[in-house]
Amino acid sequence: MKHHSRTTAVLFDIDGTLIDSNYLQVQAWSEAFDAVGQPVDDARIHRAIALDSSKLLDTLLGDRATELGDDAKARHRTAYQALSGRLRPFSGARNLLAAVAAHRVAVVLATSAPEDELKLLRTALDAEQYLTAVTSAEDAETAKPDPDILQTALGKVGAAAGDAVMVGDTVWDGQAAARAGVAFVGLRSGGMAEAELRTAGAAAVYDDPAHLLANVDSSPLASLWATTN
Amino acid sequence: MKHHSRTTAVLFDIDGTLIDSNYLQVQAWSEAFDAVGQPVDDARIHRAIALDSSKLLDTLLGDRATELGDDAKARHRTAYQALSGRLRPFSGARNLLAAVAAHRVAVVLATSAPEDELKLLRTALDAEQYLTAVTSAEDAETAKPDPDILQTALGKVGAAAGDAVMVGDTVWDGQAAARAGVAFVGLRSGGMAEAELRTAGAAAVYDDPAHLLANVDSSPLASLWATTN
Repeated sequence: MKHHSRTTAVLFDIDGTLIDSNYLQVQAWSEAFDAVGQPVDDARIHRAIALDSSKLLDTLLGDRATELGDDAKARHRTAYQALSGRLRPFSGARNLLAAVAAHRVAVVLATSAPEDELKLLRTALDAEQYLTAVTSAEDAETAKPDPDILQTALGKVGAAAGDAVMVGDTVWDGQAAARAGVAFVGLRSGGMAEAELRTAGAAAVYDDPAHLLANVDSSPLASLWATTN
Repeated sequence: MKHHSRTTAVLFDIDGTLIDSNYLQVQAWSEAFDAVGQPVDDARIHRAIALDSSKLLDTLLGDRATELGDDAKARHRTAYQALSGRLRPFSGARNLLAAVAAHRVAVVLATSAPEDELKLLRTALDAEQYLTAVTSAEDAETAKPDPDILQTALGKVGAAAGDAVMVGDTVWDGQAAARAGVAFVGLRSGGMAEAELRTAGAAAVYDDPAHLLANVDSSPLASLWATTN
């Protein structure tokens, strides 16, 4: 009897999920907003991280986004590049990707980071050998919480929504996963609380990649091992 | 008939409650831990902010705290001083203190910040005329979540625990208030989630000082107006 195995996939957010970058992003945006004369409270910036930059600017600058947005974006870019030497993968991040790949499950980086940031993140992550596919800001018209990025990620590897799990650290990841019909696993490594991630639909919440890796066979990811093998 | 009015007080945490400083603290500690060769995830640092520095070092460096703690502390101090130009009071912070003072309720800054940081914070806050008393690291042997700082703050103005409300942004503030028998009001301005602050005992949670000020007469602070007047 022949088994027809289906393509399964884990879609990983990067910022705050695999790389410890959220607080550097807060700092870079905070400096940018100060510089354009429209300071924004850091906790508000933190909650907007993972939105694409135009949504983030609309959320945080309101009706001044049109006037100040381009300047803020340019200043953020400069500030973030200056901080990029501090980008560091979370403990266990690479090994988690290796473990998923070893189960013959596609590993997809599903992010809407702009190309220049994505390059920095992939260099810091140093895990190209485990990746089946990668998305970026150029792959979808609208970013999280819209489901486009996740649908693009699924399309790139030919997996159905029900044969995939999204791993992310923000409520926006959870909302995008829900809209795409993909199960969501939340990590607290980006600074969000378990309760927030649960409210955003997380089926399970772990501290960070190392904690998920240590419990991976009892996690929602293990349902994919069963499907593939 | 003569009314004997009692002394009532609002005990305010400063970092993340009145001044937008938590994320600058995360950055300064993060740089310090990198520099001593023991990087710590930013979200873990964030959750330890508001502990005094020896508790924070024990929490984040574990058994390497003795060996690396003094060096990390010195590097944090340098990094934080360099960032101090970015310290900014939250919108509504000064007006909130003014409103409390106008109700003849004592305004106490109840913090365990070291003297050098406290000076930076008070300069940024620029609200000396509303303050009845201030605590600092030198006023108590143990910091939040122990209740010592709050008990010192109450003692300085002669208020009973039941005639005071603590306003803070961290679970450590909430735990200290609970142990001191003081009602706790949580603000999300330091980056903690409402659910975390509720779990730590918050009777009410507001976004930031401006949000509390807009709702102050229906907040737990209003119980103090009634007692005083």
